[in-house]
This record gives sequence, C-alpha cells and structure tokens, in this order.
Amino acid sequence: MSERTEISSLGEFGLIEHLTRNIELQNASSLLGVGDDAAIIDHFGKQTVVTTDLLVEGVHFDLMYTPLKHLGYKSVVVNISDIYAMNATPTQILLSLGLSNRFSLEAIDEFYEGVYAACKKYDVDLVGGDTTSSQKGFIISVTAMGEIAPDQYVKRSTAQKGDLLCVSGDLGAAYLGLLFLEREKKIFMESPGVQPDLENESYVIGRLLKPEARRDIIEFFTKEGITPTSMMDISDGLSSEVLHICKDSNLGAVLYEEKIPVAEEMKKAAFKFEIDPTACALSGGEDYELLFTISQTEYEKLVLNEQISVVGYMTEPEKGANIITKGGSTYPLTAQGWNHLRK
Amino acid sequence: MSERTEISSLGEFGLIEHLTRNIELQNASSLLGVGDDAAIIDHFGKQTVVTTDLLVEGVHFDLMYTPLKHLGYKSVVVNISDIYAMNATPTQILLSLGLSNRFSLEAIDEFYEGVYAACKKYDVDLVGGDTTSSQKGFIISVTAMGEIAPDQYVKRSTAQKGDLLCVSGDLGAAYLGLLFLEREKKIFMESPGVQPDLENESYVIGRLLKPEARRDIIEFFTKEGITPTSMMDISDGLSSEVLHICKDSNLGAVLYEEKIPVAEEMKKAAFKFEIDPTACALSGGEDYELLFTISQTEYEKLVLNEQISVVGYMTEPEKGANIITKGGSTYPLTAQGWNHLRK
Repeated sequence: MSERTEISSLGEFGLIEHLTRNIELQNASSLLGVGDDAAIIDHFGKQTVVTTDLLVEGVHFDLMYTPLKHLGYKSVVVNISDIYAMNATPTQILLSLGLSNRFSLEAIDEFYEGVYAACKKYDVDLVGGDTTSSQKGFIISVTAMGEIAPDQYVKRSTAQKGDLLCVSGDLGAAYLGLLFLEREKKIFMESPGVQPDLENESYVIGRLLKPEARRDIIEFFTKEGITPTSMMDISDGLSSEVLHICKDSNLGAVLYEEKIPVAEEMKKAAFKFEIDPTACALSGGEDYELLFTISQTEYEKLVLNEQISVVGYMTEPEKGANIITKGGSTYPLTAQGWNHLRK
Repeated sequence: MSERTEISSLGEFGLIEHLTRNIELQNASSLLGVGDDAAIIDHFGKQTVVTTDLLVEGVHFDLMYTPLKHLGYKSVVVNISDIYAMNATPTQILLSLGLSNRFSLEAIDEFYEGVYAACKKYDVDLVGGDTTSSQKGFIISVTAMGEIAPDQYVKRSTAQKGDLLCVSGDLGAAYLGLLFLEREKKIFMESPGVQPDLENESYVIGRLLKPEARRDIIEFFTKEGITPTSMMDISDGLSSEVLHICKDSNLGAVLYEEKIPVAEEMKKAAFKFEIDPTACALSGGEDYELLFTISQTEYEKLVLNEQISVVGYMTEPEKGANIITKGGSTYPLTAQGWNHLRK
C-alpha cells in the first residue's frame, strides 16, 4: 500500500460505489442487490436461513497481526459457517462497516478483496450493507442468508438418545495460532527490531487467520442422503458446543478424548506452549468445524469419510455431559472458553 | 434504574436468554427464531426484502440526550422504514449489539423495551442476532427482512418523465430536534445545574428521538391500488434523496419550495435558530418519510390523503434537478447534508 486515499475524499455514496463497482450477482435468487433501500431475494419456494455476526476490533481481531484481506475473508466465512450448520446453502450476504479515519481507501479495498474472494469461493452474492464512520476502531457486521428445501433444516435441539456425536476436520489449531501471534506481538512490542518466528506454524496460524466453512461436509450429506439429527458449528470450542446440543436436546453425552481429532501440527504447537492439546480442542474455539449427531443406522454412510470423526454418543439427560480420558477416567464437560487456557 | 446488574454476571449466553425470554413469534413465516446458528423464514412464494443499518455511539446517537428505550425503538424503525420504501411488509429483524462494560443489564433491558415496542407496533419478529463486547461505546446493527408479492417491489431507478414527485408527512423537524438537544447539552456541560428548556419543542424532539415508519402510506397504496413508479425513504434530507432518484432513474426533477410540507412547530423552531425552514427540510435528514413518484394518471387516487404532498415532477435528465423558490427563482438542488446547516 504505497498510496493513501482518504475515504472522506469520496464521501459515503462514492465509497459504496467504489467498493461495489465490480459486483456481478451470481445467484438467480438475488433479484436486486446493492444500491436501493433494500435487496430483493426470491427463494423460489425454499425456506430462508439468516444469521448475523458483529466483529469488533480489539475484541474479535487485532489488526497488528491480522491482514485486512484475511479479515474480510474470515468475516464472511464465519457467517457462512452458521448457514451450513443449519444444513442450508448460503446465497447472499449483507456487509456493514464502521470505519475510523485511520483507514485509507487502499486498506478498505484490501478488506473487500478478502470479502469478494470468500463470496466467490462460496458462491454467495453481496447484496447490501451500510458504511459509516466509527469513533474508534473497525466494526464489521455481516448478515448471511441461505436457502433450504422446506423443513430440511437441522436444529440444535433435535438430537436423540443413542445418536452418534460427530465432528468434521480437526480441532484446537486456531487457538494455538492465536497464541503464537500474540507471543510474537508481545516480543515485537518489547523489541521492535526482532523478526517474527512463525515459519513452522503456518498450519495453526492459517487455521486462525483464514478459516474455511465446511461446504464439503454439507455436500457430502446431500450426496449420501444423510440428514444429521442435530448440528451446529464449533466457534467457542467443542465442550461449549456439546453442552449446547445436550441442553437444547435435553440429553446427556459421552465424549472420548482419544477420538477427538487433532492435527499433528497443533499437538506440536501445544507442547511448545506446554499446554494440553485436548484442552485446546475442547476450549480453544474459532475452529468453524461442524458438530453434529446422526442416528446409529447412518454410521455406515460416513465411516469412510476421513474428514468426519465419531467422538461419542448421546445419552439420557440424567447422565450429564462427560468426557472419558485416554486414561479411562470420567470428568464432567465444562464450557470454560479461551480465558481459562491462558496463563 | 436503581439497581445495577453487571452483564458479566450473566455471561453471553445468559444475557441472550435473558433478553429473548419473552419473545413470541408473530409471523407465520418465522419458523425458527433466536437460539440456533441461524433463523429460518418461509416466505410462502413471496419475495424477501432485506436491509441493514449500523449505528455507532458518538456518530449516530448521543446517549447524553437519547433515552435507551427510544434508541431501541428507533434502531428498529429506521430499518423497517427501508422495507416500506421497497413497498414491502416488514416481517423479521436481527439485532446485534456491541456493549462496553459501562452498560448494566438494566440499561440493556431498557434498550430492549424499545426494540420490543417497535416489533409489536410493526408486527415484526426478532429472530436472531449477536451480542458482544466493545472496547468503547455502544454499537447497534439491525438487519430487517420483509416480504412482497413477486415483482411488486418498487426501486429508485424506475421513475418516468412527467411522474409526480410526492412526499409523506412533513420534513425537517428531526433536525431542529437535534439542534435543541445539542444546545441544551452544551448549556448543561457548561453549567450542570441548569434544567433543560425543551417544553415547547416536544414535536421536533419527538421527531428526532422517536420516528415512525410510514406503514400507513404503504397500506394506503395497497387499498387504493396505487403502485409508485419509484420510492425511497428520506433519511439524508429531501435534496439528497431527490438527487438519488434522478440519478438512478436517469431523469431531472423540478421541486416547488412552496409545496414542501413543513410543520408549524418546525418553522417556529427554525426561526428560533435563525435558519431557513426550507433548508432544514431539504438537508436536515432523519425524517423517515417516504419520497415517491407516481404516474399523473394516479393523481386523483391520492389527492385527498392529507399525509401526502405533491412537491414537483420528473423531467428530462438534461434539465437537471432544480428547486423553484417561493420568489420564483430557480436553483439547482444540491445534497449538502447536515454539516452545511451548522454554523
């Protein structure tokens, strides 16, 4: 970014025109996009799925180590992940930004590059939003819409006793990525000349900065004729999400530590910080994998998919939600979140 | 507010449960509301209209003179106004809040009282959202959805030459309300003991703090079988919005100063500040009235509606957008916005 164009030189409408000049609507359902009071969407007899997230600088992201392009990409992906978590197909997003005057037009263009890359990857149209100033920091609000055939959506509250508890991908890596970036930030703040040492941590850092939503899993369900009995995405850590499904479905659950999928890179990174990889998987968060339950009769259909791990099963509510460790001990699951892991 | 409950004592999920505990979904289309990854909406063959607004403390509102209940109400209304401006019926909203720790649970409850009052008044369901912390100030993001029979929506870009230019209600009062509140704030900051003197200004202050969306006008259109050729809501001032319709429809316009509807209370207030009431109507903003065009053949249908004023007509684009003053002079319309009016 060698040039710097002040956003104020364009004005609000000029900025919106600049940012949306290359939009080509991809979905037949996107009848009217940016540029009017509202967007118009035709779901052709399907049901509409809608979700929204608010991301605030200093709370959800740190621009010292988050490239704006990645941030734009991630802002879209985390919402799309919620659409997939309903078993639906994302179709449109609305994006609102609050910008302080420290952001140049070139910086916002970078952010939008990431937004458009995610829109393209997930076949989603940007159809509206709002652009405003903020007194401090960068504020991002994304609303995502999707569609699903009538009554085919999957809630959190419909798991059944005996159902298998499954997760996609691997867990805990994004949290380690965060630990590395915060460590390097601290070193940089103390000794600005020191170059960051992140060479071997590209996997865990990539999981934090550029997560993907599990479109492949939803497409696999469709192809194999699998309908999960309940589903949600893993944004706060496996423990917290299993407890949500237990509470909403009025069930208990058993989770096997040895079945929780973790990447080798994550384990190595956890050992560097002298923390337990299982704790990272349980409480790390920001994985954007899918947690779902299926009837035992569906097991054969997914056993060969290497991207899916069966990690436990649903029980009577009286038994509560428990984890059985590799050593054979049983502990109740607790939702502790990130702060608990920090020293 | 004699009690103060820290939000942190509930946690994010506790807060969401608390705030949404009394929701009863009103619209048949609201299949699934708060409490899952996303909401599910069935539009039963209608088209979906969706819009979003981001409101930031210190930019869009000042909590020194904005009661939280009014702010909650207004946050919903300004989005609903955009749905009506498409000729559609609002049905659902999503609400995201960013809160710094200076807000107590009681304060947030007050805000939600206003949100729910607006939902009730406009028959809209709150179906989702996000609640997060902010480092500074109060951040509000509202997404509103509505529905409309296929292809009955009204855009900004479809006005025709010769169409009549119409506005609902009266204009400019909200801006005067803002001037009074800012004046009293300044006096209060300088001499904290002085009581505010706003007794005679309840009309203009009410227009700022508790605007309404023009549901009655849209219902009138339906009843009379009127379809505007173009429409938008007036949030930035009449000048700016007329220029939008001209640009998007590739037309010019003539506006008659004497036809612009202004309230007596607004005129009196403008004289107190020694500013021109017409300038307030043209550039004041935040009126949330509707600006629309109709074919001349529809004129008879609305002539008796006292809430609608014909203020001009659309011309060839070459003529530009002009205002003819009470004195008979012609000036080009310019979009100057609020800042221009301030001394």
